[in-house]
Amino acid sequence: MQRIAVLTSGGDSSGMNPAIRAVTRKAIYHGIEVIGIKRGYTGFIEGEMSLLNLGSVADIIQRGGTMLFSARSEEFRTPEGRKKAFENVERFGIQGLIVIGGDGSFRGARQFHKEFGLPIIGVPGTIDNDIVGTDYSIGFDTAINTVVDAINKIRDTATSHERTFIVEVMGRDTGFIALTAGLAAGAESILIPEKPFSINDICHKLMQGHKRGKLHSIILVAEGASDSFDVASQIKEKTGFDTKVIILGHLQRGGAPTAYERVIGSCMGAKAVELLRNGEVLKMVGMQAGKIVALDIEDSALKKKPIDMDMYDLANILSI
Amino acid sequence: MQRIAVLTSGGDSSGMNPAIRAVTRKAIYHGIEVIGIKRGYTGFIEGEMSLLNLGSVADIIQRGGTMLFSARSEEFRTPEGRKKAFENVERFGIQGLIVIGGDGSFRGARQFHKEFGLPIIGVPGTIDNDIVGTDYSIGFDTAINTVVDAINKIRDTATSHERTFIVEVMGRDTGFIALTAGLAAGAESILIPEKPFSINDICHKLMQGHKRGKLHSIILVAEGASDSFDVASQIKEKTGFDTKVIILGHLQRGGAPTAYERVIGSCMGAKAVELLRNGEVLKMVGMQAGKIVALDIEDSALKKKPIDMDMYDLANILSI
Amino acid sequence: MQRIAVLTSGGDSSGMNPAIRAVTRKAIYHGIEVIGIKRGYTGFIEGEMSLLNLGSVADIIQRGGTMLFSARSEEFRTPEGRKKAFENVERFGIQGLIVIGGDGSFRGARQFHKEFGLPIIGVPGTIDNDIVGTDYSIGFDTAINTVVDAINKIRDTATSHERTFIVEVMGRDTGFIALTAGLAAGAESILIPEKPFSINDICHKLMQGHKRGKLHSIILVAEGASDSFDVASQIKEKTGFDTKVIILGHLQRGGAPTAYERVIGSCMGAKAVELLRNGEVLKMVGMQAGKIVALDIEDSALKKKPIDMDMYDLANILSI
Amino acid sequence: MQRIAVLTSGGDSSGMNPAIRAVTRKAIYHGIEVIGIKRGYTGFIEGEMSLLNLGSVADIIQRGGTMLFSARSEEFRTPEGRKKAFENVERFGIQGLIVIGGDGSFRGARQFHKEFGLPIIGVPGTIDNDIVGTDYSIGFDTAINTVVDAINKIRDTATSHERTFIVEVMGRDTGFIALTAGLAAGAESILIPEKPFSINDICHKLMQGHKRGKLHSIILVAEGASDSFDVASQIKEKTGFDTKVIILGHLQRGGAPTAYERVIGSCMGAKAVELLRNGEVLKMVGMQAGKIVALDIEDSALKKKPIDMDMYDLANILSI
Repeated sequence: MQRIAVLTSGGDSSGMNPAIRAVTRKAIYHGIEVIGIKRGYTGFIEGEMSLLNLGSVADIIQRGGTMLFSARSEEFRTPEGRKKAFENVERFGIQGLIVIGGDGSFRGARQFHKEFGLPIIGVPGTIDNDIVGTDYSIGFDTAINTVVDAINKIRDTATSHERTFIVEVMGRDTGFIALTAGLAAGAESILIPEKPFSINDICHKLMQGHKRGKLHSIILVAEGASDSFDVASQIKEKTGFDTKVIILGHLQRGGAPTAYERVIGSCMGAKAVELLRNGEVLKMVGMQAGKIVALDIEDSALKKKPIDMDMYDLANILSI
Repeated sequence: MQRIAVLTSGGDSSGMNPAIRAVTRKAIYHGIEVIGIKRGYTGFIEGEMSLLNLGSVADIIQRGGTMLFSARSEEFRTPEGRKKAFENVERFGIQGLIVIGGDGSFRGARQFHKEFGLPIIGVPGTIDNDIVGTDYSIGFDTAINTVVDAINKIRDTATSHERTFIVEVMGRDTGFIALTAGLAAGAESILIPEKPFSINDICHKLMQGHKRGKLHSIILVAEGASDSFDVASQIKEKTGFDTKVIILGHLQRGGAPTAYERVIGSCMGAKAVELLRNGEVLKMVGMQAGKIVALDIEDSALKKKPIDMDMYDLANILSI
Repeated sequence: MQRIAVLTSGGDSSGMNPAIRAVTRKAIYHGIEVIGIKRGYTGFIEGEMSLLNLGSVADIIQRGGTMLFSARSEEFRTPEGRKKAFENVERFGIQGLIVIGGDGSFRGARQFHKEFGLPIIGVPGTIDNDIVGTDYSIGFDTAINTVVDAINKIRDTATSHERTFIVEVMGRDTGFIALTAGLAAGAESILIPEKPFSINDICHKLMQGHKRGKLHSIILVAEGASDSFDVASQIKEKTGFDTKVIILGHLQRGGAPTAYERVIGSCMGAKAVELLRNGEVLKMVGMQAGKIVALDIEDSALKKKPIDMDMYDLANILSI
Repeated sequence: MQRIAVLTSGGDSSGMNPAIRAVTRKAIYHGIEVIGIKRGYTGFIEGEMSLLNLGSVADIIQRGGTMLFSARSEEFRTPEGRKKAFENVERFGIQGLIVIGGDGSFRGARQFHKEFGLPIIGVPGTIDNDIVGTDYSIGFDTAINTVVDAINKIRDTATSHERTFIVEVMGRDTGFIALTAGLAAGAESILIPEKPFSINDICHKLMQGHKRGKLHSIILVAEGASDSFDVASQIKEKTGFDTKVIILGHLQRGGAPTAYERVIGSCMGAKAVELLRNGEVLKMVGMQAGKIVALDIEDSALKKKPIDMDMYDLANILSI
């Protein structure tokens, strides 16, 4: 193996840069050249790529986002688009590809491998942490800390004014961010798509807390669980409490990667290079049982990653 | 002077706690007792107040919000409400009052002083920094840093995806937060209520930047300057750029006070006690020409604080 | 089980408060009363303890240190000291004890259980992460992030002045902090007690980096690996590079717990209560294979926790 | 004026990058070319300089340190060194120079101007904030916040273990950092070179605080005020309190500039360009009475900047 390529695809997440750095330096260490492809599959199709050297990835480990840029490519979903990309594979002499992204990006990778046989290794990168098979996806720890910091600030105002705040976080189909950040921040209620909820129960808990002297409440809502403004107006109506909504939105993606993010991003990037060197042709790097391992990339498409309901119950018990 | 009282009123702002601490400890140092009134004028009316000692204000200098809580009181706008409050003044033997809040709170203070003669000193506390007469209001520096931190995170995503982001900040009538944070964050355009703007000019600047290789743009919008979603859709239409909106909202109030906030909060709180001790009966503490001074509290009501248009021009030049 | 007690012992670590909160609320949820013992075994001996309720642990999840205070007790090493402590067990009707601390604290716990039969569960809390058997100890993630933040700041100066900085971190016998933070921060060299090093090799790497255009270098030294000032003077002598030393020291213990810290602290605290409820009499909570589990507390005393040499090699490869 | 140059000299400080950015973009806006000189006077002598364009200073406003690097140059103190530098002035067609640095750097600037007549404007950049004439020097606000953050962390441990901590900060001849950070952090005692202190008084205050229930104390020491380890051992001896020392050292220079730093750095950099355009030949930009103004650069050499003793007294009163 003499030359591989790396790209980031889908929504950016903090920690992608440490992973790109690890891919690049680990490969160069083993005498393999690394091509950086820009703008995900878009740059793959359009041949926007260039050689990375040791210095190309200097001073990026502490930066959010992705130095290779990212994009969602419609064209890569077409056979013509993928054919153009393969022409670049031949033109640039690429013998293996590392795709850092989410399950949408991995679908494209599987299809491309099936059609053209190029060895491809996926590295899970999405703040949602919802990729099946791996316990961790790059960007999650940083996102959680950003949400917790935001809630800390909001709590100051919530306490000073004895208010209820609805904080909406990312998670269209899954509640990983809401649940983990909610447990960490001591949110009074957590609404996730995986678990039906009753406004009456929430209001009951709010009012009981109020009776015990609680001066404020934070309700964390995954965007896919409910409409936050609707939840707010129902609470206001049923309890009379002053209730405000704040939507964290794109604030959750960026920011300097946490130490954990940098460690895992580095380990996953290096593992991807190792897998290519070992002759693997279609795998996903992942975390299982606390270790960085190789997983079947097909797995990530088949089912939905289950959320830890014990953690959900614990969050409820502790935020009484 | 043997006993004074202190309250926080209106929207909470970070730095109110250092000011409360300074009022309390400075007064006690001079042998004056301090009553802490809870929930602003609401607690003043309802007699929700108790003696503060040295330890009551320990370990609060680093906390956002206000340990005395805050509220907006409709009742204090009525003669009956103010009369009830004055009964508490007599009951608790309060000889002077320090009101930490914005110009709405100062209006009430002036009225109360006129009716009952109680010496009152205002301390400017509002993240908007729009109180006339004083160059600085408690909470502004912390809010600016929060906005700049948020833009740092957003910029990571904006760059990775080559997007334009509209970031809406507080400021219904004034653009102090938008302008100062925009200059500090290098925002490409800043929309403030004080200055008419043209969407065409903004789009022109965006497209020129794009031609020169700029990968993203941040447009900072004071909430009173325009509707952010409307700005976004116009930009999208005219330039074709992917444009997202994020509203920082209540995120801007709380958070641990910055070092500057703690210093100014401490100095202003101490100055308020000094003014009462010197026999002043109706003043506002403020910052002028870099010094903490006594100002005529009437001034804060009469006119609108002008924004620094040189700073606005500089922000435009530097973010080219 | 009607009444249990909890204490923190040894060096404080961030995340102890979330653990105390979880112990308290989880126990109360199950109808068990919780006694908070102050100052570790010192308070245990002296009977400094009082009932905790739901509100006692409100608003502590985001605070560093330990609300129960900590201390090292010589007296608890004596039979007399432990006998006094047991009198308090009887006086206060304590049926189980949760000890949050390091292996020194667990030694005392084992001895006390052996002598008096009181069920005791240990929760690993030490920033050094060196407790045998568990992959994680409370305080480690926060400490790592503090070290990485410090290195970020130091790197600005190192780059501006093209200097080499020796950064000394905690770790008398183990290099967990140095290795993990070093990988996360991209430190050019990492010196740990577990691995002999050669000053000549370090200087060689420094000079090669310098030739390739590296403007600065960070060398991370675990306090037990070498004398930092000695390392600095040897490097200065052999390379001629301007080399400074900074010792992070007690800066590494405190600070608001990270999101991860709060989650793990909460889960471990809750697990300890569960183990007592299940009739366990001498266990340690720990993390293994990514799960919170019950471990044999004896294990923590017998051997030394091995460091991950693959991670060490990776850090070397990536920081070339 | 067609071409000017800019350099940073002496110890780096956070905020130098916003100043460089402002110099560059403001000059280009007025049609003036900007040469960036590397490594301060060293690069000036050696001709290490190149043209900066709009993009050269993109994405630096949020970075600590200085993108132009800094150094202390012995050679520039010699007539030969300065003559070489002037040859570069002629070779590169430099018509004005902006020097961002401290008073040592300004001394060289005055000498050079006297000998060769080149218009030079100084911009005060030093975390010590001790340059005479200006109320503010770039880097101070960021340094203060770094110190306050560090004390926050240390206080967690100090409280948990009921310890006294001596925190040593920069300031060989002046106590600006110690005093301002000490007031902001609520340090129990502040030792500065400008004010003699008595160990007995400090111990007396410590013991009185202890009697009132204070669980810990932070003593902030400017490096020029005393030997921290000596202070610690005297306190330990006289009070018996467990007393630790932590030296923040180079941690204080770097780090992302605060919002205030970026605003002031930007305004000062732009002002320097304005002064050159207005035909000034030897001035220092400074802050006086809350405004950015032109000052006589000679002033900075003549006397010592006095510290605000009212602030010192206030810090003592508030930290009782």
